[in-house]
Amino acid sequence: MNKIAAMSKITPVTWKDVTINDGFWGQWQKTNASSTVNAVYNRFKETGRIDAMKLSWKEGMPDMPHVYWDSDVAKWMEGAAYILYYHPDQEISEKLDNIIDMIEASQHESGYFNSYFQTIEPDKIFTDRTAHELYTAGHMIEAAVAHFYSTGSKRFLGLMTRFADHIESVFKINGNQYYSTCGHQELELALFRLWQATGEKRYMELSKHFIDKRGTDPRDRVFSVKNGEYPADPPLRCQLEYNDTYAQDDAPARDLPAAAGHAVRAMYFYSSMADISREYGDDELYEACLRLWDDSTLRKMYVTGGVSADRFGEAIGMAYTLPNAGSYAETCASIGMAFFAQRMFSIKPDAIYADIIERQMYNGALAGLSLDGASFFYDNALQSVPAYNDFTTGIHDKRLPFPHYRRQRVFECSCCPPNILRFIAALGEYVYATENDTLFISQYIQSSAQMQLASGALKVKQTTNYPWQETVSFQIEGDAAVKATLAFRVPGWCTNSSVSVNGTSLMSDHSLAAGVSLSQGYLYVPASLIGDGVVTLTFPMPVTELEANPLVAEDSGKVALMRGPLVYCLEAVDNGFNLLDAVVLRDPQYRTEIKDISGIPMVVLRGDAAVRTNDQWDKALYRTGGSKYEKVTFTAIPYFAWANREAGDMSVWLHKEASITDAIG
Amino acid sequence: MNKIAAMSKITPVTWKDVTINDGFWGQWQKTNASSTVNAVYNRFKETGRIDAMKLSWKEGMPDMPHVYWDSDVAKWMEGAAYILYYHPDQEISEKLDNIIDMIEASQHESGYFNSYFQTIEPDKIFTDRTAHELYTAGHMIEAAVAHFYSTGSKRFLGLMTRFADHIESVFKINGNQYYSTCGHQELELALFRLWQATGEKRYMELSKHFIDKRGTDPRDRVFSVKNGEYPADPPLRCQLEYNDTYAQDDAPARDLPAAAGHAVRAMYFYSSMADISREYGDDELYEACLRLWDDSTLRKMYVTGGVSADRFGEAIGMAYTLPNAGSYAETCASIGMAFFAQRMFSIKPDAIYADIIERQMYNGALAGLSLDGASFFYDNALQSVPAYNDFTTGIHDKRLPFPHYRRQRVFECSCCPPNILRFIAALGEYVYATENDTLFISQYIQSSAQMQLASGALKVKQTTNYPWQETVSFQIEGDAAVKATLAFRVPGWCTNSSVSVNGTSLMSDHSLAAGVSLSQGYLYVPASLIGDGVVTLTFPMPVTELEANPLVAEDSGKVALMRGPLVYCLEAVDNGFNLLDAVVLRDPQYRTEIKDISGIPMVVLRGDAAVRTNDQWDKALYRTGGSKYEKVTFTAIPYFAWANREAGDMSVWLHKEASITDAIG
Repeated sequence: MNKIAAMSKITPVTWKDVTINDGFWGQWQKTNASSTVNAVYNRFKETGRIDAMKLSWKEGMPDMPHVYWDSDVAKWMEGAAYILYYHPDQEISEKLDNIIDMIEASQHESGYFNSYFQTIEPDKIFTDRTAHELYTAGHMIEAAVAHFYSTGSKRFLGLMTRFADHIESVFKINGNQYYSTCGHQELELALFRLWQATGEKRYMELSKHFIDKRGTDPRDRVFSVKNGEYPADPPLRCQLEYNDTYAQDDAPARDLPAAAGHAVRAMYFYSSMADISREYGDDELYEACLRLWDDSTLRKMYVTGGVSADRFGEAIGMAYTLPNAGSYAETCASIGMAFFAQRMFSIKPDAIYADIIERQMYNGALAGLSLDGASFFYDNALQSVPAYNDFTTGIHDKRLPFPHYRRQRVFECSCCPPNILRFIAALGEYVYATENDTLFISQYIQSSAQMQLASGALKVKQTTNYPWQETVSFQIEGDAAVKATLAFRVPGWCTNSSVSVNGTSLMSDHSLAAGVSLSQGYLYVPASLIGDGVVTLTFPMPVTELEANPLVAEDSGKVALMRGPLVYCLEAVDNGFNLLDAVVLRDPQYRTEIKDISGIPMVVLRGDAAVRTNDQWDKALYRTGGSKYEKVTFTAIPYFAWANREAGDMSVWLHKEASITDAIG
Repeated sequence: MNKIAAMSKITPVTWKDVTINDGFWGQWQKTNASSTVNAVYNRFKETGRIDAMKLSWKEGMPDMPHVYWDSDVAKWMEGAAYILYYHPDQEISEKLDNIIDMIEASQHESGYFNSYFQTIEPDKIFTDRTAHELYTAGHMIEAAVAHFYSTGSKRFLGLMTRFADHIESVFKINGNQYYSTCGHQELELALFRLWQATGEKRYMELSKHFIDKRGTDPRDRVFSVKNGEYPADPPLRCQLEYNDTYAQDDAPARDLPAAAGHAVRAMYFYSSMADISREYGDDELYEACLRLWDDSTLRKMYVTGGVSADRFGEAIGMAYTLPNAGSYAETCASIGMAFFAQRMFSIKPDAIYADIIERQMYNGALAGLSLDGASFFYDNALQSVPAYNDFTTGIHDKRLPFPHYRRQRVFECSCCPPNILRFIAALGEYVYATENDTLFISQYIQSSAQMQLASGALKVKQTTNYPWQETVSFQIEGDAAVKATLAFRVPGWCTNSSVSVNGTSLMSDHSLAAGVSLSQGYLYVPASLIGDGVVTLTFPMPVTELEANPLVAEDSGKVALMRGPLVYCLEAVDNGFNLLDAVVLRDPQYRTEIKDISGIPMVVLRGDAAVRTNDQWDKALYRTGGSKYEKVTFTAIPYFAWANREAGDMSVWLHKEASITDAIG
C-alpha cells in the first residue's frame, strides 16, 4: 500500500499571508528588521564577504574569499528579502540590489557563480566535493526564490535558474567526472523551492536525482576513513570526524539506518527527502524519513531541541549521548530540524512535528541570538562553566573556553547568524497550514492572517501574550467561516488545556463538546460552532520538572525546568551560589515573577534548592561523604535569554532531591 | 630563608634493595616478568620498532620508523633491565643485548643516535623541536642507567654518555641554532639519573641548563597559537591543543603559574624541577614545584589519580573540570605523577606524597594494564558507555567509541605499555626511604628489604595481604635495629589506624604511646621500642563513599566508592541494570565478599541502590518527573580490574540519594 498517496497533502500558509505585528514574535521580528539584518550585513561587509562577489580579489590583498562565503551572503539576502516585504527599508533594499548587480556582472556565461572558485581556482570548478559549491549554489537559489516572492522581480531568480540549468547539465545530463552529489546538502531543498517558484518540474527532478544518487557513487566517499572499518589502532581524533556517516554517505537515502553525521547536512538532507517523498508518493523514502525523525528526536535531541551533540564532526552524536558541558547544538541544526518537522507535517498533520518546531523556535534556535539581535551563538551550551579558573586559582586559562559562553558578532564560518535572520523573518510560515477546508493552527503567535480554503477566503486573528501567558484568542471571518474546520494544536507540553467559544466549553479536561474531535494532537472545531464568536484557548503553564530517559546518563538524577514551551536555566548573575552543585528540593515551592532582562520583561521562575556549604571543604578535592547543605532560593530564566548579562556559570539541568528509599516497594 | 637547605634530604631505598616475592605486587611483578615484558617486546618487534635500530629501513619498505619509536624501545629496555635482576631470563637477556648491539653499531661517531633521523632525515637532525629527539635520547639514557644498575655492565651506559656529551656540546656549549630546549621533556630527568649513576656533575648541570632555558627562548615557542592571545574568531579545534602551555613554554619554570598543558610533559618536567631544586637548594624552583603540585593534585586530578582530563592536547585540563565519560587520564601521566611525588617526598617527607603514589599504583596507573599483563589502556575512562547504540537502536555506531572500553595490544604511539612495564618492575623503590637513622616506610607491600642507615645495616620484613586486608606486620633486624627510628606512613584514606608491638599499643585512635610521635602523616617509632618484636599496623578498611569538591560539577550529587587504597567501580557484567542511572541508597548496607575476576580473587563490594523502572518511559526522551524506582543490589569491583571481561557500561562515580530537605536548618 502506498502510504503517502493515502495521506493528506497539506499546504503551509506562506509567510506573506501572516502578519506578525507585535507580541513576542512581533518584537523579535522588529529586532530582526532593525538590528540583526544590519549587524549581519555589516560584519559580512567588514570581513570581505560582500565585496568578494566582485571577483576582484588578488593575491596579497586581505580577506581572501572562502569556498562557503557565498552561502553566508545568500542567507543574508534571503532574510533581507523576507524582511523588506513587511519592513520597507530603502537602504537594505539598495544593498540587496547592489549584491544582485554584482552577481549578475560576475556570473559566468555558463550560468556558474561562485566568488571563491571564479576568483581563486577557476580551473578547479566542480572538482572537489568537499568545496561547498553546490551548497552555496543552493543558498543562492533559495535567496533568489525569496527575492522573487518578496518583490515580484524575476531578475535574481532568472540568474539562478541559469545556474540551476548549468548544474543540471554538469551533474545530471553529462555527469560530472569528479563526483555526483553535494558534499554539503542544501541544493536539494533549494531546487524543490525553485520548482515551486517557477513551475519548472526539471528542478524538482534534479533534486530527486541528487537524493537518489547519494550513497551510491564510490567517488563521493571522500570523507571516508577506511570505509568505516575499525582501524587496529585508534585513529587520530581528527580522522574520527570524517567517516561515511559525516555527509550521510553511508547508505543510499532510503536505507539510511540512523540519524548520524554532520547535523546540519543531515537535517537539510532529511528535509529534502521529505519534500521528494511527498511529491513522488515515495513510500520507501518516507519510511526512511520517519525512521530518521524518530531517531533524531527520540534519542539524539537535547531538551532545548539542540541536535548536534558531538563536537567531532559537528555531528548528531550517538543515541542517548547528550553531554551538557560539551554540547554542540549548532543553531543551524535546530533551524534545520524545524525545516524537517515542517515538511513531515506537510505529509501527515501531527502535533509532534509542530511541537518540535515550537521547541526550536523558543529554545534551540532562538538561543542563537542575543536579545539586542546583534550577536550569535554557533554552538549552544547546555551547561557553561566559564568562571572556574578565575574564582579558584585566580588564574584564567588562556585557551578559548569550550563551549562558548559569549555570543560573537561574526564567525569564520558564519552560517548561523544569517540563518537565524531568515528563520525569524519567515516565521509566519510555521503558524498555519491548510488542507481543503481544514485550517491547521500550529503556532500561537499574535498575528493576523489571510488564506484561501476550498470554500473561500478566510481571515484569522490571533490575540495572545503567549508564551508568557496561557491564553490565546481567535476570531475568524470571511467566505469560508461557515464551512471550514479549524484544527487547533494542543501543545505536547500541556496536560489540561481547555478551549471555549464565547465562554462555552469545547474542550475541558479532555472532555469534548459535540461536533468537536481530537486527533494526533489537534482539536478539530467546525467553524459553524465558532461563527463570529471568540475562541479562547487556555494552556495552563505550571512550572514543570522534566526528567530525561534513564538511558541519558548525563541527566540522570537531574531535572530541567519548563514553563509552557520555554525551557529555563539558571545563570550565575541571578544566583549567588554554586548553581552547578544546587539540588532542587523535593518541594521547591515554585513561583513566577516578571523580571527585566536587558530591557525585556520576562517571566522568571523562583524555587528552593540547597547547596553544599563550602567551609567543610577547605582545599580538599575529595573527602568522605555526608556534606552539610544550606538552603538557597534560585531564579531561573528562559534559556534563550542567557548570556546577555555578566558572564558566569549556566545550567539547564539541575540536580533534584529524590526520596527513593521511601518510594521503593 | 633558604627553605630547601633547612629541609631533610631523603634517600630512597633502591628497587634493588627491596625484594617483592609474593602478595599483591609480587603477583603483578611475576605477570610483568612472564607476560608483559614479552607482550610489549613482541608487539614492538612486529611493528618494526626493534629492527628500526639497524637503520636499514628503505623507502618502499613497510614500517617506516617514527620519530618517537626509540623511546618505546628504550622504555622496554629499562623495564627488561629491572626485571632481569630478580627474574633471570636468558631469552630476554639476549634480546636486550641484541638491541644494545644494534645501537652500538648504529650510533653516529658524534654520539648521536636516533633511528628515525639517521635513517630518514639525517640532514634534519636537531632542527625540529617537535620531533622528540631529546625525548628519545632521555629514555635511552634512562634505559642505560637501569641496565648499568641491573647488570653492572658499563657498555650501554658508555654509549649513552657519549650521546649525552654530544647533546651537551650541541645545546649547551655551542648552542643549537634551531631551538634550545626539549619539545617533550624527559631528558632533564634522565640526565639527573645519569649524574647519579656516573658521578659526572656535568650531566646534572645540563639538566639544570635545560630547565633554566625553558620558557625564555622565542624560538622554542613552536606550539604557540598567536602567543596565547584570544583570536577574534574561535580557532579551529585542532589549534586549541597547541598553545604555549602545551609544552610548558608559557613561562620560565620558576614562574609557571599553574599545572597546564600536555600532562606527561608536565609531570616529567615538574619531576626534574624537583630534582634540581633539591640538589641546588633552589627555593624559587621548589616554590614552583609546590605550586604545581597543589594545582595538579588539589584541582585537576581524578579520584583514580588520573591527571590528563582534557583530550585536546592530552592536557591536564582546567581547574575542577574533570569529565568522567570524556576522561583522558593517560596511564603515562599517572606514572609521571608518581615520579613527581617521589621527588617531592625526597625534599620533604610528607604522607601526602606517598598517598598519591599509592593512589596511582593501585588505580590510575594499574588500570592501564590488563589482568593477564598483555594489553593496555592509553587513556583511562572513568565512565564508559560502549553498549548504548546496541541496546537501544540495535544499530552500532561505526565510529570508535570515546573513551575506549577495551585495552589494546599496542598503539601507534605506544608509550604507555612499556611505561607500566618499567613502573611495576621498579616498584620497590617507592617502598622505603632513609634519612640518617630514620627509615620511612611509605608503601605496604609484602617484601623483604635491606638498607644502610647512619648507624648501620638494617633488614626489614613486611608481611601483609594489603590492599585486600587491613593488617601489616613488620620485623626488623641488623646493626641499626637499636638506634634507628621507623616512620610508618598512616594512609590518608584511613581514619582510625592503630599500631602495636607484640600486642602493646603504640598508637590507637590517635592516642600515642610514650616515645612515639606523629608528624606529616608519619608515625615515628624508635626501634628501641620494637626490638625483635613484631610491629602490627591495622588500617581499617570500611567501604567509604567519597564526594568531590562542590566545584567539580561533573561529580556533584555523586559518590565514588573506596575500600582501603582501592577505588571501586560498577561494571555491567556484574550488574544487570542500567548502572549509570543507579542511585546508591541512603543506607546501602555495604558488605564485602571475595570474587574471582579473570582467575584472580578480589575483594568486591555489594550494596543497595535503586534505578528508574523502564516501563514508564516507553520511547519518550523527556517526560515530567516523579519516576518510580526499583531496588537493585550492586557489585563494585576494583577500578584497576575493569574491562577484563565482557564489554559494557562502567562508572566510578555513582548517584547518591541524599536527604537534603531534612538536613537543612
